[in-house]
Amino acid sequence: MTDEVTMVRIYCTEGEHKLKKILDYLHHVEQVAGVTAFRGVAGFGRSGKMHTASLLDLSLDMPVVIEFFDRPEKMESVIEHMKTQLEPGHLVYWPARTNLSE
Amino acid sequence: MTDEVTMVRIYCTEGEHKLKKILDYLHHVEQVAGVTAFRGVAGFGRSGKMHTASLLDLSLDMPVVIEFFDRPEKMESVIEHMKTQLEPGHLVYWPARTNLSE
Amino acid sequence: MTDEVTMVRIYCTEGEHKLKKILDYLHHVEQVAGVTAFRGVAGFGRSGKMHTASLLDLSLDMPVVIEFFDRPEKMESVIEHMKTQLEPGHLVYWPARTNLSE
Repeated sequence: MTDEVTMVRIYCTEGEHKLKKILDYLHHVEQVAGVTAFRGVAGFGRSGKMHTASLLDLSLDMPVVIEFFDRPEKMESVIEHMKTQLEPGHLVYWPARTNLSE
Repeated sequence: MTDEVTMVRIYCTEGEHKLKKILDYLHHVEQVAGVTAFRGVAGFGRSGKMHTASLLDLSLDMPVVIEFFDRPEKMESVIEHMKTQLEPGHLVYWPARTNLSE
Repeated sequence: MTDEVTMVRIYCTEGEHKLKKILDYLHHVEQVAGVTAFRGVAGFGRSGKMHTASLLDLSLDMPVVIEFFDRPEKMESVIEHMKTQLEPGHLVYWPARTNLSE
């Protein structure tokens, strides 16, 4: 058993309603071992439109990143699927290592 | 002097009370150069239980990631220690580079 | 066309007023494809001073990380510039891959 994983980060905004759809896909279809979503406080994308928020801003147009990792061969199929769902440059991934059960 | 570092991310939840313990360990025992913790807005782990929050949700069961980096040989011992404290798949690390003093 | 990118993370605090300056530079001068900033909930740097916050803490001295990625040769010049603006150990980068247009 190897400790090699592929780490993936997906960029979307809360207003796209993609967050829940992607989380459900990763959870129920792919059963990825663990997923965490983080809300950004500022950002901009290819549109060049800057998104910013005060801490208490409840805007639904804020950046959100969804992060997860799992075995490389499992992530390969997840990445292939996500590529069909996302605009270019909204997904990034790299090799990493994790802690295994003893 | 090399600019190579090992980047580490540790996944826990606020409800576990592990956050403060891990931060204290990294701060006082290992004296890691810098550590940042981020609170997730949604996530799930091996249990399959989904954690979600509205922005103002004060739930203590939300995901938190602790991120830090330092020289690879220093991180190696930190990772070995943390492996004894964490469940499998709750730690991920990869090689990176940093900016050094001129 | 290659899918190789360099991922960069820059660490600052809100109180430094660097956040807006760096975002403006990445947006208007370098025209990086996408940038997201995340607010940390706890952290410490080389000073050893611990920054912590309750969720609703409006402290301006909290850690913020600015994350972006783009083609390696573009990121090389951004990193060279940022090195002159940041203290040692406040920038980290590594190779990754992204999704391209079909």
